[in-house]
Amino acid sequence: MSIIARAGLAARGNRGSIGALTCEERDVARIGFLGLGIMGRAMAANLLKAGFEVVVWNRSAAKCAPLVALGAKQAASPREVAAACDFTLAMLADPAAARETVFGAEGVLAGLAERRGYIDMSTVDDATARAIAAAITARGARFLEAPVSGTRKPAEDGTLVILAAGDRSLYDEAAEAFEVLGKKRVFLGEVGQGARMKLVVNMVMGQMMVALSEGLALGLKSDLAGEAILDVLEAGAMACPMFRGKGPMLLADDATTSFPLKHMQKDMRLALALSESVGQPLQGAAAANEVFKRATLAGHGEADIAAVYRVVR
Amino acid sequence: MSIIARAGLAARGNRGSIGALTCEERDVARIGFLGLGIMGRAMAANLLKAGFEVVVWNRSAAKCAPLVALGAKQAASPREVAAACDFTLAMLADPAAARETVFGAEGVLAGLAERRGYIDMSTVDDATARAIAAAITARGARFLEAPVSGTRKPAEDGTLVILAAGDRSLYDEAAEAFEVLGKKRVFLGEVGQGARMKLVVNMVMGQMMVALSEGLALGLKSDLAGEAILDVLEAGAMACPMFRGKGPMLLADDATTSFPLKHMQKDMRLALALSESVGQPLQGAAAANEVFKRATLAGHGEADIAAVYRVVR
Amino acid sequence: MSIIARAGLAARGNRGSIGALTCEERDVARIGFLGLGIMGRAMAANLLKAGFEVVVWNRSAAKCAPLVALGAKQAASPREVAAACDFTLAMLADPAAARETVFGAEGVLAGLAERRGYIDMSTVDDATARAIAAAITARGARFLEAPVSGTRKPAEDGTLVILAAGDRSLYDEAAEAFEVLGKKRVFLGEVGQGARMKLVVNMVMGQMMVALSEGLALGLKSDLAGEAILDVLEAGAMACPMFRGKGPMLLADDATTSFPLKHMQKDMRLALALSESVGQPLQGAAAANEVFKRATLAGHGEADIAAVYRVVR
Amino acid sequence: MSIIARAGLAARGNRGSIGALTCEERDVARIGFLGLGIMGRAMAANLLKAGFEVVVWNRSAAKCAPLVALGAKQAASPREVAAACDFTLAMLADPAAARETVFGAEGVLAGLAERRGYIDMSTVDDATARAIAAAITARGARFLEAPVSGTRKPAEDGTLVILAAGDRSLYDEAAEAFEVLGKKRVFLGEVGQGARMKLVVNMVMGQMMVALSEGLALGLKSDLAGEAILDVLEAGAMACPMFRGKGPMLLADDATTSFPLKHMQKDMRLALALSESVGQPLQGAAAANEVFKRATLAGHGEADIAAVYRVVR
Repeated sequence: MSIIARAGLAARGNRGSIGALTCEERDVARIGFLGLGIMGRAMAANLLKAGFEVVVWNRSAAKCAPLVALGAKQAASPREVAAACDFTLAMLADPAAARETVFGAEGVLAGLAERRGYIDMSTVDDATARAIAAAITARGARFLEAPVSGTRKPAEDGTLVILAAGDRSLYDEAAEAFEVLGKKRVFLGEVGQGARMKLVVNMVMGQMMVALSEGLALGLKSDLAGEAILDVLEAGAMACPMFRGKGPMLLADDATTSFPLKHMQKDMRLALALSESVGQPLQGAAAANEVFKRATLAGHGEADIAAVYRVVR
Repeated sequence: MSIIARAGLAARGNRGSIGALTCEERDVARIGFLGLGIMGRAMAANLLKAGFEVVVWNRSAAKCAPLVALGAKQAASPREVAAACDFTLAMLADPAAARETVFGAEGVLAGLAERRGYIDMSTVDDATARAIAAAITARGARFLEAPVSGTRKPAEDGTLVILAAGDRSLYDEAAEAFEVLGKKRVFLGEVGQGARMKLVVNMVMGQMMVALSEGLALGLKSDLAGEAILDVLEAGAMACPMFRGKGPMLLADDATTSFPLKHMQKDMRLALALSESVGQPLQGAAAANEVFKRATLAGHGEADIAAVYRVVR
Repeated sequence: MSIIARAGLAARGNRGSIGALTCEERDVARIGFLGLGIMGRAMAANLLKAGFEVVVWNRSAAKCAPLVALGAKQAASPREVAAACDFTLAMLADPAAARETVFGAEGVLAGLAERRGYIDMSTVDDATARAIAAAITARGARFLEAPVSGTRKPAEDGTLVILAAGDRSLYDEAAEAFEVLGKKRVFLGEVGQGARMKLVVNMVMGQMMVALSEGLALGLKSDLAGEAILDVLEAGAMACPMFRGKGPMLLADDATTSFPLKHMQKDMRLALALSESVGQPLQGAAAANEVFKRATLAGHGEADIAAVYRVVR
Repeated sequence: MSIIARAGLAARGNRGSIGALTCEERDVARIGFLGLGIMGRAMAANLLKAGFEVVVWNRSAAKCAPLVALGAKQAASPREVAAACDFTLAMLADPAAARETVFGAEGVLAGLAERRGYIDMSTVDDATARAIAAAITARGARFLEAPVSGTRKPAEDGTLVILAAGDRSLYDEAAEAFEVLGKKRVFLGEVGQGARMKLVVNMVMGQMMVALSEGLALGLKSDLAGEAILDVLEAGAMACPMFRGKGPMLLADDATTSFPLKHMQKDMRLALALSESVGQPLQGAAAANEVFKRATLAGHGEADIAAVYRVVR
């Protein structure tokens, strides 16, 4: 067991006495954070800056250093993090990583005591979310899925939108942490509803990205100035942060990745799969999805969703 | 000739001396206004409230009364208005009305003196705009097309977006009036570019209306609460006045007409026609247009664009 | 007046006596043919081979030679042809050519006697067809529009499908000539219905071309052999001359022009315009049209419709 | 063990000596047939009429009677059939039935001797096909997937198209039986390729069904006669058995089920899923799929694919 982890467990040993503190000496939750990619790193840093005690872990341990520098404790495994914290947040790359982090030999399940909480903020498929939820609740612990709407910038600014579903008491318990991470949070019911909300929202976003691309392409071919088009959009009922952000990127042929196009295409595909299962035709989304597929085929999958413009114009 | 018009011409006779007034006694332009429908009425009223001298005309004269009550002068024909004013604005129902108002026996052409200005803020097709422009410039007068983005509410609030093209000096001369009518104005070059910009913007709007409808329909069928979906959209990058306004209407099945669906469908059709002539494929817009066509076929043409939701859900 | 044409008029002078021939010496109609492009040349040749007397004209007179070699008489203008023949067929490149051929100084109208017939087999727009029809009937002559379904090969083989509308008596009178030109003819009512039928049929064809392209592209990417896919299609309910003809072209990347892609795109556009005016949503056709637009934008407009595959795969 | 099955095993015992028969006394294969629904019943009957020895089984045994009347032997379980026959064909309702028939306690696996063959002609998903293939080959027996293109009528007429993949020697061995069942068979390589070919073909069919529906709807709204439209299609390059069969059904609003619409929608969905995995955009298929989804939502899922017309017109 790593030194850090032992420190963590020692701290844990003290936890019992924390309950004896008076109300004035408000208890600060100890929060675990698993996964320090672009998103997770920014989120964990925000928690630290807000005064939370944070225990971090990342597959490649080197990524923990900047957070330790900010005051985080580092643990050697998801198991150690889960064992040491009141509740643990995770922001992992994909369903495979989400499963391994929970079910692995040194995974969350092995460390999570009864009543503790595990909050997966990664975007995973239904089956993965349910498998994790089932295992954790079977153990007597609590699970919350909490995928987010928003990418790097909102993660850094603490303005994510948190789409939570699962254990309500855990949602309430994490309220102060969520307050730091996001500007908005909603509780949506049973596990799976958070993921569904994210698909709905991203499907709308995908169509808007295609609409903006087509609007600019049509306007430019009609000899309108691109800046004028963006100005007019900004002045009207369609003015939105997305057009403000992506519009100039399209005009500059800048596709610096904030939200990878292939992930958007995946979300469109999943939204269409959801639409099949609930029986909802989606004519607009189906057309937009094919445009994203064309962009992926053309090699823009790793670029930002802004790159969809390259196959539209 | 009507009494009012004679008064107008008398005033005109005095105009020459206005230039001699001191700076403190700032000259107020005399503005003609043709067409007092939902939009025109609100716009003319705003000009009056801002202190402009306004001479109004409407096909059915009864609609002039409320504006006369606000201080407008009433004229008997477009010809009289054009003859009496520095420049004349028009907000007419359709291309036929726009042509009749200019080319009719008592039309604008018959009254417009050299160098005077005529500004058509109606939404008309290219051919109509060009025919009017040619006739007016052939006469030595000046023409500006200035269709607007925005419907009843922005017209009332003076927050329209004005998409002007044609005579630049007239655009500059009308600056103060445009300031009152809109929050944003752009000058886009040759006659036709204003109309093209409007098509581009409305095509984006049409796709967003379909995207919102599909998002809500998919979410509701997936057991998400409609209000939660709107909340999440409002908190994210897609937050826009349009979703804020139309979203609750969709949930309430309210299609009180602000922008008639059939007009949106017409604009989508014209945008697609434009795309044919400039060689720009529009996969998303084409799909959305068919959804609007279906809504029209289903009898929702006179309802608000929000009614597109009725054929999506 | 050309020698040929004088010969033609002389022949005309003899016509009166032809009625006195016995039944055994059956009267052969004298047919005019205007426009000797790829289609017209093959059609006129078939009429000659079938024993008809044919008087030809073409804008560039050189194209008449091969037909004169087959026994045709050559005239100097559409006027001369119309004056010399029982009825006159035309197969012209576009609406402009169709109008010029009728309304020009030496045009059909100038030569067409009362009760004579003019049959336009070109594909033109509604307005052109109606303008020509009105002028010809105003003169007391008879008009039939008769666009065809089928391209070079069916024109050569005499297996066109003739979509006639207008004057019924002229349709009946031309029955023997139509018998030679096509394997199928239908009379569809008022002028305009022939053109509409052609749009309907070509719209179905356009969608099938996209369907075939997508089927082959999906199959090949899934490691199926292209020939096997065509074999299986040929063996099933979708077996059709079009797949038999175009399928191997797609696999060989052969787009030798039989039906120019830009003409198909134009027909798709016109079918969609028709759908707007009659209120019929066309989700599939709208999507297919955008694919053809993309192919045109990619520079395949002059190639065969088979080239749509190049932007699908 | 049932009497029939014992007879089967006895026959099996004699099989070894069959190799010693002279060429004149050609051996007739004993074929098992599992699943006697609309398709299977017709196929098994055709095999019997062609002189094959057939051993049948069906979940509800009553359906075996008509085939026994034609000379079939009846077995009590898939296990007995597989044990008694040279090779066994199956035509089952869905993946669940296909799995149960193989893996159940009295399933095919329990009866299949080494080198014997199992040919699944049902339409199942990739995972099911692969699971069955793996289990059967692990046992030393041979597997062929052989889904068919064609529905009730071709099954009755012996004109199915057989899309085979898997064990080549089994494909060759079943050649005479396939000759009876279909007019066309292809061998496509590894297990999974048969199913993929079927998706490709049905995706083309789905688009053609939408194209036909839109063509008829547009034509009828344009005052063309439905019969005339079908006549013209039949005379041209798009003439195909499908239009010949479904066209009159559309005009008569007849949707008597031959191929259930919901199955077509499922195949379109699976084709689109395949397109995602191989990276092939399918703009036309995506639009058509949404039309089928709309038809399913409107309650036409159990009706024939012809019912798609009900949501198009």
